[in-house]
Amino acid sequence: MDFFYSNIIKNDIIVLDSIESNHCLKVFRKSIGDIINIVDGKGTLFKCKIISDQKNCKVEIKEIFKDYNKKKYYVHIGISPLKNQSRIEWFIEKSVEIGIDEISFIECTRTIRKKINIERLHRTAISAMKQTLKSKIPKINQILSIDEFIDNNSNDNKYICHLEENIDNSIFDYSKTFKVNGSSCVLIGPEGDFTIDEINFFKKNNFSFLSLGDSRLRSETAGVVACHLLNIMNFRFE
Amino acid sequence: MDFFYSNIIKNDIIVLDSIESNHCLKVFRKSIGDIINIVDGKGTLFKCKIISDQKNCKVEIKEIFKDYNKKKYYVHIGISPLKNQSRIEWFIEKSVEIGIDEISFIECTRTIRKKINIERLHRTAISAMKQTLKSKIPKINQILSIDEFIDNNSNDNKYICHLEENIDNSIFDYSKTFKVNGSSCVLIGPEGDFTIDEINFFKKNNFSFLSLGDSRLRSETAGVVACHLLNIMNFRFE
Repeated sequence: MDFFYSNIIKNDIIVLDSIESNHCLKVFRKSIGDIINIVDGKGTLFKCKIISDQKNCKVEIKEIFKDYNKKKYYVHIGISPLKNQSRIEWFIEKSVEIGIDEISFIECTRTIRKKINIERLHRTAISAMKQTLKSKIPKINQILSIDEFIDNNSNDNKYICHLEENIDNSIFDYSKTFKVNGSSCVLIGPEGDFTIDEINFFKKNNFSFLSLGDSRLRSETAGVVACHLLNIMNFRFE
Repeated sequence: MDFFYSNIIKNDIIVLDSIESNHCLKVFRKSIGDIINIVDGKGTLFKCKIISDQKNCKVEIKEIFKDYNKKKYYVHIGISPLKNQSRIEWFIEKSVEIGIDEISFIECTRTIRKKINIERLHRTAISAMKQTLKSKIPKINQILSIDEFIDNNSNDNKYICHLEENIDNSIFDYSKTFKVNGSSCVLIGPEGDFTIDEINFFKKNNFSFLSLGDSRLRSETAGVVACHLLNIMNFRFE
């Protein structure tokens, strides 16, 4: 099964942009009459029939699957932008594969990168969505200050991963207090970790310390495994 | 802190091979008299002083840290070789970062790749070990048949991940039966999954089904998150 992406949908006709058209017609050698799967990045899968194989391939919708593979829970990772762009992209790719709904970039004291190319990350997310046969692109937020992030954050389960703590609060310690099928957020700091002031500020705002084990992980690896933990914490109780 | 690697150790002298020497002298611009950290890939860290900056840099051991950052538990992943070599290397890199002691490649019915370049994977593991400041390289086994693997496997905690099951046996369900600080093994199948016969065979040999959540993960991603789960299962109870 292969997925194509388009958000140009009018009545029962979908148009693929030139890149997706090329992918569909040249790489996958599809032609008029063939049935293909298109996702809109918002959770809907369309089974469609190709009706025009021009530069911008047109298809006719035959079947609609709303909320395709929709999860009951919401996974949000707040992460400091990483120095290295390709490591940010890797984080997006893997977290889309594992399952993520929202990514917030937070500017911390030790954050080096102050700008991110949201458009490019969006394209990375679309590509990962198609490859892993999902129908939804995560919401990717522009860089926020810590205050802005807190003001806009209303997740049910809130955790912060950092290296300061010696107590081993693992996911097992939260299995009773965790709100299943709610929205969860884990915060991952910059390469040099959060400052103690930042940690205290997040704790005051009800973020609890979550341990990811005894290896010092790179930020992007921490983001990916934290994303997986939030998924299995919900999956277990269903 | 930077780590260099060598296994050429005689009395109190260590010799770096030409690649490591170049790395140390040219990339890191170290010179005679400088103190550097060398790991032997077997768990020992040496603090050493450079005494010769020739092609094969020689150093004198000043301090020895045996069992540097040694964990009390043992993590073993059994995985089908992946079609794509770079995905195998990625799996090695990330699992070394997270913490792994042994990797076994298992030839399953649906395994496509029949050969692996152990020497190259060993180099990938050395590089990941240095970058993540660890002192031990995992044992990497040549491709084994399923029978050979079972004959040589004596792990305390044994799990198999596959897509056949509908029951959600997550790590939470094993938290009581899991032997802490023992050796644990998780099996990850090939791109097309284990066959039902293989699953039944492993189950007869005391491998229990472990769910990694509701997303269909790529084999290498499954390997990495399974490796992380085995680590945190031990870490939690310490």
